[in-house]
Amino acid sequence: MEIIPLGTASAVPACGRHLASVALVVKGRIVLFDCGEGTQFQLRHAGLRHSRIVAVCITHLHGDHYFGLMGLLSSMALTRREAPLTLIGPQQLAEVLDAVPGARDGDMTFPINHVQLRSGFTHAEVYRSNDVSITARPVEHRTFSAGFRAQTPGTPGNLDVALARDLGANTYSQFQALKRGESVVTAAGRTIHAKEVVSASARACTFAYISDTRPCASGRELARNATLLWHEATFTHALQARAIQTGHSTAREAAEVAHDAKAERLLLGHFSARYPDPAVLEAEARQIFPNTEAARELVKYPVLHILETSLAEHLV
Amino acid sequence: MEIIPLGTASAVPACGRHLASVALVVKGRIVLFDCGEGTQFQLRHAGLRHSRIVAVCITHLHGDHYFGLMGLLSSMALTRREAPLTLIGPQQLAEVLDAVPGARDGDMTFPINHVQLRSGFTHAEVYRSNDVSITARPVEHRTFSAGFRAQTPGTPGNLDVALARDLGANTYSQFQALKRGESVVTAAGRTIHAKEVVSASARACTFAYISDTRPCASGRELARNATLLWHEATFTHALQARAIQTGHSTAREAAEVAHDAKAERLLLGHFSARYPDPAVLEAEARQIFPNTEAARELVKYPVLHILETSLAEHLV
Repeated sequence: MEIIPLGTASAVPACGRHLASVALVVKGRIVLFDCGEGTQFQLRHAGLRHSRIVAVCITHLHGDHYFGLMGLLSSMALTRREAPLTLIGPQQLAEVLDAVPGARDGDMTFPINHVQLRSGFTHAEVYRSNDVSITARPVEHRTFSAGFRAQTPGTPGNLDVALARDLGANTYSQFQALKRGESVVTAAGRTIHAKEVVSASARACTFAYISDTRPCASGRELARNATLLWHEATFTHALQARAIQTGHSTAREAAEVAHDAKAERLLLGHFSARYPDPAVLEAEARQIFPNTEAARELVKYPVLHILETSLAEHLV
Repeated sequence: MEIIPLGTASAVPACGRHLASVALVVKGRIVLFDCGEGTQFQLRHAGLRHSRIVAVCITHLHGDHYFGLMGLLSSMALTRREAPLTLIGPQQLAEVLDAVPGARDGDMTFPINHVQLRSGFTHAEVYRSNDVSITARPVEHRTFSAGFRAQTPGTPGNLDVALARDLGANTYSQFQALKRGESVVTAAGRTIHAKEVVSASARACTFAYISDTRPCASGRELARNATLLWHEATFTHALQARAIQTGHSTAREAAEVAHDAKAERLLLGHFSARYPDPAVLEAEARQIFPNTEAARELVKYPVLHILETSLAEHLV
């Protein structure tokens, strides 16, 4: 599982940054979080094919978060997509698309499964496949806005049956015990430890996408123990009053959410055009939560637990 | 007057090309023809500020020609534009925008003057300022589609009064006669010819924008004697059957329109993704109409009469 930021700007494209969108790639399939104007171009720049998108999650109906959806859907139809698409967003979204020639369900060559988040919902599972499950919760913005949490199931390690046989295991109960992580003694008296014959299990990983919002309890709930947390950080804390007024978060507040939720790693996005270099936001957040980065567009960020991330970086 | 192609692709962004849009710049003000997704990004890349846009002309409601309008309007509002904007397009356009949160008239900080082209109209002046007048006519596409013709008024040459005085002219009627292009004889018997003291007059220039359409009589009318004609050329003539089926033109057909209308210069756009290099379309059109180019995005094309263009190129 990895994410690729496609847009890190807020409101208007500026400073070379694009409008809100993050691609989550799980086993070659893509879940898109937000879809600002130009997302289909950024997908191309990232080398991601829109035919691999299985679901699109829209947080809220401010233009910078969804005006790219019409063009993306239209391009899917023009390339004769047939696979169903799950479209998750505020209740009104389906109705909006239905009013836009070229983006209507009737213009599509594939079925759209609309998952509508209604005002007053508290939490819901909005998407599930063998590889990922996504839940949504309402967050606190000027308008109805939702945050998302994507989780991969942990996978048990694989037993190398041939190796276990070579070491002397030969009964069903021995194989089962090894799979459970136990040790067994063979007929010849050899002790086989599970770690000798079972590959490391993959722990469940969680990616939380929270934008746009004030820091809030449901944000912290979405971010709980997240392997990777994406949190908007529109302003520095010096502009907290403006953040409150506009329903956004400061970098320090995003870091506090990461800290309180015991997230492993924090990526900041949704930067105001007043910060040509978001390093100032990154630096502010690191004072509270050191494992923070200001997201860079088109860079691949693995969603891996800290130890595995360190190993991966070590190998690179 | 010059134009800057912002997007030359048809249907989907491909081959590094963007979606339909052309900026016409007249004395620092911009008229936009079509507004595909990403137009506001391309305006930035062209160094054009959206605050300079006075009018947007939308040919028809296929997504590749108008999905960038929502984001452009939204960015105008977010940057607190106050100047009125004239928005010209199919009747349904205002209603579509009204259904899209973030792109509604009520979301704007400035007034929009909606000029609605209704099914059955034959021609109309849709915009007029001191510097340019724009007319529209219906063309022939799968859906309602309009073409546009922008014309600058010719300007009389300027009289160099000081020089005329030095040569001996000294009465109001002499100055008026020189301005009219006549010769006068001074009290001292010197004949002053107008060309000695009056700068060359600027002839009216015409830019015609025709996309999407089959070749048609109203297209030829829009293109009549055009200084610069933009005509869609989605396909080569080998695919004429497909052009007919989809309501588009081939490069040869675009050239025939330019030839029949006695246009001075032809720019081709709206290229199908099947042509990574539109040189093939350019070559085909040149067989009929030699003064043809396949438009390149972000290049400035002056709208000048052939002689003036030659001079300008000579000076460069």
